Amino acid sequence: MKKLITPQATINVQVLLTGNELMSGVTTDSNSAMIAEKLSTIGMALSRKVTIGDDMDVLVQEMEALSLNSDVLLVNGGLGPTIDDLTSEAVSKLIGKPLVVNQQAIAHLESWCEARSYPLNQANRKQAFLPEGAKVIANAVGSAVGFSVKWNDCVVICTPGVPSELRVMLDREILKLLMEDFPNAVAPSITRLQLFGLGESGLQQSISDDFPDWPANVEVSFRAGVPTLELKLTTFTEEDEPEKELWKTKLLLNIGDYVVGEGSTDLQTEVVALLADQNKTLTTVESCTGGLIASKITEVPGASAVFQAGFVTYSDDMKNQLVGVPDSAFKANGAVSEAVVREMVIGGLKISGANFGVAVSGIAGPDGGTDSKPVGTVWIAWGSDDRIYTQRLVIGRNRKLFQLMVSAIALDLIRRLLLNIQEPPVYFSTYQ
Amino acid sequence: MKKLITPQATINVQVLLTGNELMSGVTTDSNSAMIAEKLSTIGMALSRKVTIGDDMDVLVQEMEALSLNSDVLLVNGGLGPTIDDLTSEAVSKLIGKPLVVNQQAIAHLESWCEARSYPLNQANRKQAFLPEGAKVIANAVGSAVGFSVKWNDCVVICTPGVPSELRVMLDREILKLLMEDFPNAVAPSITRLQLFGLGESGLQQSISDDFPDWPANVEVSFRAGVPTLELKLTTFTEEDEPEKELWKTKLLLNIGDYVVGEGSTDLQTEVVALLADQNKTLTTVESCTGGLIASKITEVPGASAVFQAGFVTYSDDMKNQLVGVPDSAFKANGAVSEAVVREMVIGGLKISGANFGVAVSGIAGPDGGTDSKPVGTVWIAWGSDDRIYTQRLVIGRNRKLFQLMVSAIALDLIRRLLLNIQEPPVYFSTYQ
Repeated sequence: MKKLITPQATINVQVLLTGNELMSGVTTDSNSAMIAEKLSTIGMALSRKVTIGDDMDVLVQEMEALSLNSDVLLVNGGLGPTIDDLTSEAVSKLIGKPLVVNQQAIAHLESWCEARSYPLNQANRKQAFLPEGAKVIANAVGSAVGFSVKWNDCVVICTPGVPSELRVMLDREILKLLMEDFPNAVAPSITRLQLFGLGESGLQQSISDDFPDWPANVEVSFRAGVPTLELKLTTFTEEDEPEKELWKTKLLLNIGDYVVGEGSTDLQTEVVALLADQNKTLTTVESCTGGLIASKITEVPGASAVFQAGFVTYSDDMKNQLVGVPDSAFKANGAVSEAVVREMVIGGLKISGANFGVAVSGIAGPDGGTDSKPVGTVWIAWGSDDRIYTQRLVIGRNRKLFQLMVSAIALDLIRRLLLNIQEPPVYFSTYQ
Repeated sequence: MKKLITPQATINVQVLLTGNELMSGVTTDSNSAMIAEKLSTIGMALSRKVTIGDDMDVLVQEMEALSLNSDVLLVNGGLGPTIDDLTSEAVSKLIGKPLVVNQQAIAHLESWCEARSYPLNQANRKQAFLPEGAKVIANAVGSAVGFSVKWNDCVVICTPGVPSELRVMLDREILKLLMEDFPNAVAPSITRLQLFGLGESGLQQSISDDFPDWPANVEVSFRAGVPTLELKLTTFTEEDEPEKELWKTKLLLNIGDYVVGEGSTDLQTEVVALLADQNKTLTTVESCTGGLIASKITEVPGASAVFQAGFVTYSDDMKNQLVGVPDSAFKANGAVSEAVVREMVIGGLKISGANFGVAVSGIAGPDGGTDSKPVGTVWIAWGSDDRIYTQRLVIGRNRKLFQLMVSAIALDLIRRLLLNIQEPPVYFSTYQ
């Protein structure tokens, strides 16, 4: 199997990240990873990233040095309305052109403020001053437009630091612009699979073991997310694409049960889609996850077609009162027990009238653990009026990660049920 | 008022991050934030971070350039056992000294492998080859030792890329080493306030307007988070600290109602703490937020003392069945109406027996909006058996951000109620 490598960039792209918050440790930069990932889809790779604080002289110096050595310099941050947003002025100094009111930028600001009934104040107006001759890059979601200039034979592109704004600007404007400027870059063909329930190293090992003849021209790489793991298959020429499809098919025969979906599909989106396809509804009865499963489901547009009610039954009393868990169920083994989660899901199904239900009760910690039920212990029940399944797991993480993993597992068990997957997932043996 | 600036580092620290995974977008760098934060505690600040891939020539060049301009150069990554771990060899080339087996390093590797019953293989043994004359920096948790050399009048410190190893190495070894090398660094004094309901630019404007005589030695800076905004007051000498406290007090007189807490306190933590202090309980009845408010509350350790039940009533039927919203309430204005949220919170209070309740019903989008109720419209009701308050807001964001903001506002309204704050928050007029 081929090692993950940065593809040999024919086009030299460098990134300059600016902002004191990036230097002080206050903010972790996720923008440059986003930039790298999106540029890779058009066949471009980063060769260097430089991060500096909000200092005019340093900014101008660094832009000069980087532009001398790049085909493309992407500057990120410093386009906001405040006094420490220096990028426009720095570019103006760099290229020796004055800052002037840009008509496109001012029109954008006016309509942006109007749509929000904000007054267009002096601070905002500052965002319309761009270096003379700069080409505006539209910002569909924020007040600050981006812009580009040419300097030292390098395309200098200035972008906002707010990740949601950067994302939209890359998708709608910058990638297009770069493809026009550099028509010879070859975009790799990428297939992304989202997996749940397999770890990166285990998966890597099993691919090496099961596919000793994996071809070098189909690159395999991973990105460990929470809670899903992304597996990426990449080919760099058109002729290699059919081979990628062939090996994807082979791979799916092995690990298909763990594939939540292609592209950026997540667990909740897949569960809502499966329920909608089958014209079924789901209910949730949550103790230790405290509403997180329901909130994940209702994050998905159109969830109302498949989800009508959820219960957060955090205390024993409320487990009884809201979904009718009988006192007797608590007697033998307390609230974190098979008997209780079974009654929780039965009660939830009955009251909501949903076709499927999932219930969880566990010890999220940091307190409340015992020898027989350590922190991280959770009972899950899921199923329908026809049949209820139960499972005990111990997920020894911190409170937030525990809640996140239990919610993901609950969604995955519903996904497996809807797909009629018989084989129990490996996490049943991993978390014990 | 003094602007946010990188404190003038008397000691110039730069960081060189290495690794293809950092360039390709696969891995987000969190190490440099950790380094910056830890160095700030001993009065040192980063002036530049450079990130490059695993390329020997580039690595040596970059080390040379950075060491010429730094007092301290922290190199992170590339100390592992694999062939693309190049740091030791690069330093050897940089300083023109051969790689030799370091006795301390080999002893560490031997005992590290022995403790784990691993064989000491060739790959691991590579980690004991360090540039001649390098000073070993112990690694208490991993196989790769760190090391330092002096070059171009700069202390070059090489550290492992694994975050848990770096953390321990910084805490136990590197900070001590740097304090010895630079005894004159002064640690700044920092006060962090978490605010909700004020925007960064508005706040900055109001500080400029209300405090024209803000002293230059008390630095003000902001970090816009979602949903809170962090305001940081920093002083750099011990004599300035009382002044920081004085101006903090003045600031709180102006904007105290918006301060959720000090340090890293968030809305849910503060709400749970206030409820616990007052020995009160809370319930939630959620439509458009789908369980997110409840899940935020139950994220907080000890939430079970103040939160027993939450309701996710996503459909009209379930609003009726779970919390008894009468059919008549829907008649006049549908499910997103004052009448319905009022009945939702009344029903939730009654069934759960909680002291306080909050209910939300809105249109999260992307579909479902009308002219009179556009996407983003939400009705909120909150209060107790004594008195119910209601408010209509329009929060025009995407679905996820809408849910997040509505949840935060719901928590903030409960916080204000518990603190008996009479003045309505500015977001009542911003979101209309």
